[in-house]
Amino acid sequence: MPMREPGICVVDVVKGELRGATNRYTKTLADLEGLYADDAAYRTLLRELGDTVVYEVTDYKPSNDSGDMIIGVTRMLPGKVGKEFFLTRGHIHANANRPEMYYGESGQGIMLLESPAGEVRTVGIGPRTLCYVPPYWIHRSVNVGREELVMTFAYPADSGQDYDIIARAGGMRSRIVDDGKGGWAAVDNADYQFRDKGLVDSIMAQAS
Amino acid sequence: MPMREPGICVVDVVKGELRGATNRYTKTLADLEGLYADDAAYRTLLRELGDTVVYEVTDYKPSNDSGDMIIGVTRMLPGKVGKEFFLTRGHIHANANRPEMYYGESGQGIMLLESPAGEVRTVGIGPRTLCYVPPYWIHRSVNVGREELVMTFAYPADSGQDYDIIARAGGMRSRIVDDGKGGWAAVDNADYQFRDKGLVDSIMAQAS
Repeated sequence: MPMREPGICVVDVVKGELRGATNRYTKTLADLEGLYADDAAYRTLLRELGDTVVYEVTDYKPSNDSGDMIIGVTRMLPGKVGKEFFLTRGHIHANANRPEMYYGESGQGIMLLESPAGEVRTVGIGPRTLCYVPPYWIHRSVNVGREELVMTFAYPADSGQDYDIIARAGGMRSRIVDDGKGGWAAVDNADYQFRDKGLVDSIMAQAS
Repeated sequence: MPMREPGICVVDVVKGELRGATNRYTKTLADLEGLYADDAAYRTLLRELGDTVVYEVTDYKPSNDSGDMIIGVTRMLPGKVGKEFFLTRGHIHANANRPEMYYGESGQGIMLLESPAGEVRTVGIGPRTLCYVPPYWIHRSVNVGREELVMTFAYPADSGQDYDIIARAGGMRSRIVDDGKGGWAAVDNADYQFRDKGLVDSIMAQAS
């Protein structure tokens, strides 16, 4: 094995990006079709926002090796589609037994977690909150604040992402909405369908 | 596999600790005997500092599973032993092919890296610097500032630490000293002995 050189990056909290990143990807509202409950509000906002990037990820990926680690920064605009706060697509790790760590830099977010069997957890993330997402949880970030939500993250390099697991169930079981009192609430997603036991068992059977 | 609950910690930058940590360890100057070049200065400072904790680590360790991740915070006093800045013991991972990520929270530090074959690298770490330590590098933190050095870190849960690799070579190849001009310099450690090729090869042969 040849030695690799140390990586030196800087988290730019104001710009919400990792300087020195090896990858960047961006999402516009148009990329998020079908994710929000209120389709009419989505269409209206789409005309308004055009090609605005609603969230982006910059990361430093040293390798895909098992045992290696990817680190990066995610930046997300504040906003709502109808009553529903802006969200990321969300994923479970393709190697479902891999964890992830999110670290709040600025803004106010929610990490929305769902087990394959449909259990739901919400974790509030403000500056300096370190949220550990254990293996096997589907997870998605939601910006419930009035400013950009910026988080640093780290996860095992061989995790991979499965985004479709959410679409196949009709979305996540809960939606995070404005409670009309300056806060947020988790409400049921009417389109959600529980995964059958065979699928749940096959996900949970993945070993290290 | 049962689902584990999400972990919620907070990095307290002022106290230099992780609230919600599952482990804490502390080091006094007495614990660091033999690490500094100037033994007379070490003895003098030891009488002065008594049992003062010179650095401590608080971490959140969800499991030892391969593919899992440990996250934590390290806090280190400013100071010098003679001309040499305060340092941590340093280690290589027992599974040497595991990386580590350090993230500057406050203060000014140096990550001192050494390959098994004796190559040296130094990475300056200030607030918001994200330093990726690749697999196979021995590494040690040095506080070159006037304030406490606080860093958040993350590494694979099955990494382990081998601290003796440094002692067996007579220390690390470089020492980080006050350059007399308000900065620091890396100088040769006169006691350092290069590892023989067989040992280097056996470390580098560790696979994922």
